[in-house]
Formats: sequence, C-alpha cells, structure tokens
Amino acid sequence: MDLASELLEKINSRKAVVGIIGLGYVGQALLKEIVSAGYSVIGFDKSNEKISVVNKKYKNNFFATTEKTLLKKCDIILICVQTPVDKFNKPDLKYLLQAVHDIAQYIGPGRLIVTESSLAPGTTRNVVLPILNAANLYEEKDLFLATSPERVDPGNKSFGINDIPKLVAGIGNNSKKLVTSFYKSIVRVVIPLSNLEVAEFTKIFENTFRFINIGLVMEMREYTNSLNIDIYEAIDAASTKPFGFLQHYPGPGIGGHCIPVDPFYIFEDAKHNGINLRMIELAGSINDDSINKIVSKAYKILDLHDFNENLMPTFSASEGVFAHANQHNGTLSIMNMGVKGGRNKHVTKKNNILLLGIAYKADVDDIRESPAVKVWDKLANDGNRISYHDPLIPSFNDASSVDLKESVLQQDLIILMTDHSNIDYNTLVLSGIPILDTRHVYSPKAYSNVFHL
Amino acid sequence: MDLASELLEKINSRKAVVGIIGLGYVGQALLKEIVSAGYSVIGFDKSNEKISVVNKKYKNNFFATTEKTLLKKCDIILICVQTPVDKFNKPDLKYLLQAVHDIAQYIGPGRLIVTESSLAPGTTRNVVLPILNAANLYEEKDLFLATSPERVDPGNKSFGINDIPKLVAGIGNNSKKLVTSFYKSIVRVVIPLSNLEVAEFTKIFENTFRFINIGLVMEMREYTNSLNIDIYEAIDAASTKPFGFLQHYPGPGIGGHCIPVDPFYIFEDAKHNGINLRMIELAGSINDDSINKIVSKAYKILDLHDFNENLMPTFSASEGVFAHANQHNGTLSIMNMGVKGGRNKHVTKKNNILLLGIAYKADVDDIRESPAVKVWDKLANDGNRISYHDPLIPSFNDASSVDLKESVLQQDLIILMTDHSNIDYNTLVLSGIPILDTRHVYSPKAYSNVFHL
Repeated sequence: MDLASELLEKINSRKAVVGIIGLGYVGQALLKEIVSAGYSVIGFDKSNEKISVVNKKYKNNFFATTEKTLLKKCDIILICVQTPVDKFNKPDLKYLLQAVHDIAQYIGPGRLIVTESSLAPGTTRNVVLPILNAANLYEEKDLFLATSPERVDPGNKSFGINDIPKLVAGIGNNSKKLVTSFYKSIVRVVIPLSNLEVAEFTKIFENTFRFINIGLVMEMREYTNSLNIDIYEAIDAASTKPFGFLQHYPGPGIGGHCIPVDPFYIFEDAKHNGINLRMIELAGSINDDSINKIVSKAYKILDLHDFNENLMPTFSASEGVFAHANQHNGTLSIMNMGVKGGRNKHVTKKNNILLLGIAYKADVDDIRESPAVKVWDKLANDGNRISYHDPLIPSFNDASSVDLKESVLQQDLIILMTDHSNIDYNTLVLSGIPILDTRHVYSPKAYSNVFHL
Repeated sequence: MDLASELLEKINSRKAVVGIIGLGYVGQALLKEIVSAGYSVIGFDKSNEKISVVNKKYKNNFFATTEKTLLKKCDIILICVQTPVDKFNKPDLKYLLQAVHDIAQYIGPGRLIVTESSLAPGTTRNVVLPILNAANLYEEKDLFLATSPERVDPGNKSFGINDIPKLVAGIGNNSKKLVTSFYKSIVRVVIPLSNLEVAEFTKIFENTFRFINIGLVMEMREYTNSLNIDIYEAIDAASTKPFGFLQHYPGPGIGGHCIPVDPFYIFEDAKHNGINLRMIELAGSINDDSINKIVSKAYKILDLHDFNENLMPTFSASEGVFAHANQHNGTLSIMNMGVKGGRNKHVTKKNNILLLGIAYKADVDDIRESPAVKVWDKLANDGNRISYHDPLIPSFNDASSVDLKESVLQQDLIILMTDHSNIDYNTLVLSGIPILDTRHVYSPKAYSNVFHL
C-alpha cells in the first residue's frame, strides 16, 4: 500500500495521531474537536505554563508537551503558531519557521503537514516546503502538505469551529484528498479549493474585509460627529436593509492577533510585486489615528473637569459633577470643550486614569494589538497615573487589575476600552466620575458624565 | 380638527391623494405599491415621453402628467427626482430645487412633503425647508416635512419595495407620525428614526459601504492577478464564512445613479466641515482607474491578436484563432502580452470593437454612470470603430444596438461590459473572436479567446 493510502486508512479508522503545534486559542479549539472525533492528540507549545494549564483542561486521548521529539509519533501535524507583524507591520515568521524546522528534524515519511496559521499566499509552498524538502521529504511522494487557514472567532458564541466551513487545499491531489478527509472527520462542512494560494489568500481577504470596513465606519464617525448624528443609530438603521449591507461598529481601534495583522501580510507581499494596496494602507492609518483621538479626547474631558471643579468648590463626587456642570452651563458641547476648558491643566497635572478593560475585545483574555495598551503607553508617557481593571486579565506588565468599586472615586477619568459583559456599568456611571466610553456601552446623551469618541 | 389630524384621517381612509414627482424607477416602484394600497396617485414628470409610457403601464387610480398645477390636488407629495453629481463629482441639486419650487408654488396648508431622493444629511432641513418657508408654509404648523430615502435595488428579484424596511424621519413629531402612518399603509416594515439627518445619512452610508467594498475587491483583483489566484474562487470561498463577510464582485467599475454618486454627497459635505473622507476618495480613484485598465487590456489583446494573425496566415475565425495560438506558443500569459505583441498596431489601426451590454448592470436599461459609456468614449477617441449590442437599450447617442449574430465576425474584439441574462454566451465564445470579459461570465482559462481583467 502506498503512503497516501496508508494515511487515509489511519484517518478513516481514527488511528492517526494528530500533533498540534501552538496551543493558543486556535490550537485549543482544534484539539477539543479532534479529540471528540476520536483521534489521539499531542499538543506542543514552548510555554511550560500553557502546557500545564492545557493538560489540566483536556485529559482523555490528549497530552501537551514541550518535548519536540514526540513529533515523531504524529501522523498529521497542524501548525497553529501565531504569525504576528513587527512594529513596522512587517510579517514575522519566526514561530512558523521554528515549527517547520522542528517538524523537518523529527518526522519520517508519509505525514500530512497542515498550516492553520494565517499566511501570505505562497508561504506554504515557498517557505514551508523548501525546509521540508531540505530534510529529504518530497511533496506528494513521502510528504503531504496542505493548508487549512483557521477562521475561529474568539468569544463568538454563535459559531464554533464546527459551525464554520473549513477551507482546505493541498499541494497536489494526494495532499488534497488527505486534508479533505481529515477535516471531514472533524467539522460539518469542508470546502476544498484549487490550490494552496487561494486558500491562504481567502483567509486574509476575510480579515481585510473587516479591517477596511472598520476603517470606513471609524471615518464615518468623524463625519457624523461633526453633524451630531448618532452613528450607532445609522448603523442599526442600515442593518435593516436585507441585502447589500453588513454592520461594523466603530470602537477604540482594531485589536487582536488577526484583523490588524493579516492585511499587512498581503500588503507587504503585494509591495514586493510592485502593487500598492492603498485601501489597506489607508484603513491602517485611520486605525492608528484612533489611538491619538482617544488620548486627545481624554485630555479634553480632563480640561473640562478641571474647569468645572473651579466653578464648583462644593463639588461632591456622589452627587455627580457633571449634573452640576450642566446646571451651570446648559448643555456642554463636546465640540468646544477645548476652548471652554482653556487652561490645559493636564500637561502639568498627573491625572489618575483608569482603563476599564484592556483586552482587545469583550470577554476574551487576549491583549495582543489591543488599543488599550497603546493608549496606556501614551498616557503614562505624559506622566499620568494609569491603573486598570480587567476581570479576565489579573495582571499585565508590572500592574495588577484593581478592584473597580474601591478605586473608582480616586479617578479623574475612566476610559472604557473593552466592553466585557460582567461589569456593573449602571453603578459605575452613577459615581459621577467622567467616563470616556469608546465602546458605546452607554447611550449618547443619556448621562452627563459619559463622553464618546 | 387640526391639520395633522385631518391628514392622518385621510391616510387612514386612503382618501389622501398622493403626488409623485419624478417617474424614474423609484417613482414607478412607489406608485405601483401606493396604488395597490388604495390611494389615488398623480405622477409628475417633465418628460412627455415618460408620461405617455407610464400612463399606458398603470391605469387604475393613477395618471401621469407634466401639469404642475395639479400639485394643488395632492395631500402627500413624494420627491423622487434624481440627485446626480456633475463631472467633478459635486452634487447637482437642480432637479430637487425645481421640484421644491413647484411644490412651494402650488400647495396649500396641511400637506406632507417627503424627500425620497438620496440627499446629503441636512438637505431636507436646510435646502428644502427654506423654500417652503418662503412660501409661508411652516413646519409642524401648516407644513409636514419628512424624509424616507428610497432603498430600491433595480433588477433585484428577491427584494421589492415591499420587502425592504422603509426608513422614515420627520422634522417634528407631527411630521414623523404622518410619514410613519403613511408608509405603514404601503410597506411591511417602517423604521422611524430620530431625525431627518440620520435617515438621510443612513441611505448614503449604505451605498458608501458598497462603493468602498467594490473598491476593495477591485484592488484585491490587482493583487490576486499578480499571483494567478482566481479572485472569484476566493470570494466564493470567503462567502462560506457564516459571519463577518459579505461578498462583492469586481466588475468593469461602478455604475448607476446611486453607488457611484451618493458617496460624493457626503464627501463634499464633509469637506465643507474640514473633514476629508479618504476612504471615499480612494475607492473613487480605484473605480476611475478601472476604465483605463479595461482600455489598456483591450489594446493588449488586440496586439496579441495581430501577432498571432501574422504567425498564422491560414487563420479562420470559425476554428478559433486562440486555439491555434496556444498550439504555437503554449500557454500565453496575460502578463507579458504587451511584450509578445510588441508592435502596438492598435495605434495605427482602426479596430472594430463591439461593446456587449452598455447598461450599468445586468437586466436594467439604465446607462447612468455606466462604465461602458466611458470605455466607449476612450476607445472611440483613439479612432476605433465602436458598435454595441444591448437588448435593453435599442439606441444610444447616434448609434443603434446591432444584431449580435450578424456583426460578431466583423469584430476584432468584443468587450463584455454587462452580463444581461438573455444573451447566448455559449455560441458567442465559439466564434473565436477575442472577448474581454469584464463580468466573469466565462470561467477563467476555460476558453483561449476569453480574457479577464
């Protein structure tokens, strides 16, 4: 029997041992489903801490290890390492390269290697394959090589890995057949595509779509703010159109390991081909601008706050400073705050600023590319005293998540960066402390101490 | 009884007479539904030709006229005139202004005026209202003013006017109540919004979403072409994601009265407020580039054609020139065609070029902003002999739609600009005449005489 048929039989009988390199949320989501499908799974990660956490979480037919030699035992290896960008938005393939070198060192003939990580089109063929070829493993002969880019949405309760059709492509017919059979044994719908590159591109295209549309809606917010139109009312109204529209909401900026990163994989690749993907460049710059907008809005609010404190020496936090402010000034327009505040005290004053939520989105514990971290850096650099509360991230850098109730009245400003669901927003707003709500948790104009971007 | 209650009673009893100004596809789609709902309708248009066509089409409880004095008879007037942009993409409100001046001249107190046309936010309040005020009609007293931007998609067989929720907003509570009641008597779902501006903006935002996303996918096509990835395969693959993606297809460019026009209404307005809506500017420029790409691709194909003709003196159209070409050259890459052709004969030769379809999209008879017209102009300016076939547009400018079967073999090139459904594409491709397919009617690589953008 040839190697492909042998492996196919192991897939059909669930005797194939599956290795997963990288036990982040993608690796873990996969291992759960693959174990459920009846396979034995070995998880690989370089972090001992993660290994021990994952080993506690999943027990039957699974163990996690840092021991790369065990790659020898695997018939199928899924590469689920992260593929970040560096600070110049250039792809950083070091985790991928490490994983492939490890595979090349330990595997024998007849294995199926699948890239799940987001990759620029051509990476599986032009980066992964040569390393394996150098170890005398040749595609479609003694090596089966495929890609199946992950499409997991962390925290999405409606669509798990099983509900999302799995795109697959192989470097040749045997690889394609094997990768299709393997994933068909795990998820409901498998979509075989005609080559590796179209699969790699599709994943990045999906995230580029989101990237561009969030850029659009952030730009639209600039415009609707200038007209006093509530962008959220408009987005919800547009969403009633039963075709041709998909809602995206403007927030503090794009975060996470995918949406802000993936578009730059094709941006860089296109640049090498002499093509300037201007939409990506522009949406990226709109996204970057958002951090500055949050910081400058924070200072406008702090200036206004100082101004009102001076007017009201009997100020008491429990009564709500902005209720007083409004009695005195009528409605305070966000537009002319800088002028009204006037003195820009924030430059000489160390403000106490609490970041509420630092994860990149609600109900995840991931701070990769989180706008909160960038806002923190900028405000701290200016000399402000920054603390944070995030129920899902107990500590970050040298700080720990503070108790919200205990610390709230010491704050000059709260910046609501992440709309985690288990926060008592109602009580918080009644403290009267100014809140810059970047997530539309509070309705515009409902509270005089709440400000929006 | 006050004027608002009187009008409400006329709506409830269907005794209100409804005037529709502008009998384009929006006006006609509305009149059909409004007549069905039991109202008597008078249609107004400046074109005698259109009046007589519409009068033949719709008979009961309806007549169309050019006679503006009949506006006197109307209790409710819907403004459905077009709001185009000029050649500098600046909003051209002349039809709107004419309609409002006519209304101001003829109506008495207690009427409901509704803008259905796409307008920049603030136009109903700041442009329409003052003209009516100048005729001594005051909002919420003796004038009810509202907006309900049309969301009709011409040619869309899945969603008619009745299936698309109707956004409405009034200048005050009476106007809001009246416009809501009126449209509730006509369509299934009515969405009242909090002010005129959010309604006006929402419509333009919906079309800006499409504009930007078509721009994105046209830019992506540049990139995928450079990698030999089939963008349509990627779009269809991405569409299998059950959330977070909405497919748009790259074509010859954006056309029609809405998508290429509406974004510039807010672009111009934002500019006045010092805001540069860069996403719109960029998507607009990508769209404009598309015309040049079609023309330059056409010339590349013609060069290749000349080249192959020279190689094959026994060429016969019925056998298919490109089948021969492929025997000789192996697979001819689109990428290096210019180099292979070499002689750029097209500059000295008058090519016969047939545009197949000149409407801006399939199965409509509308040529507004159609990319075909722009391609025609450019190619004709270069001295080529242009003809066209469009089953829905019998004549255009000084030309008439030619018979496709009779004229096809005289062509050096067919540019498939619109994918109307009643064309025999299978027979056409067998003619062997080179076809530049801007609409993905033919699968890439399926025919050697078919080229794609």
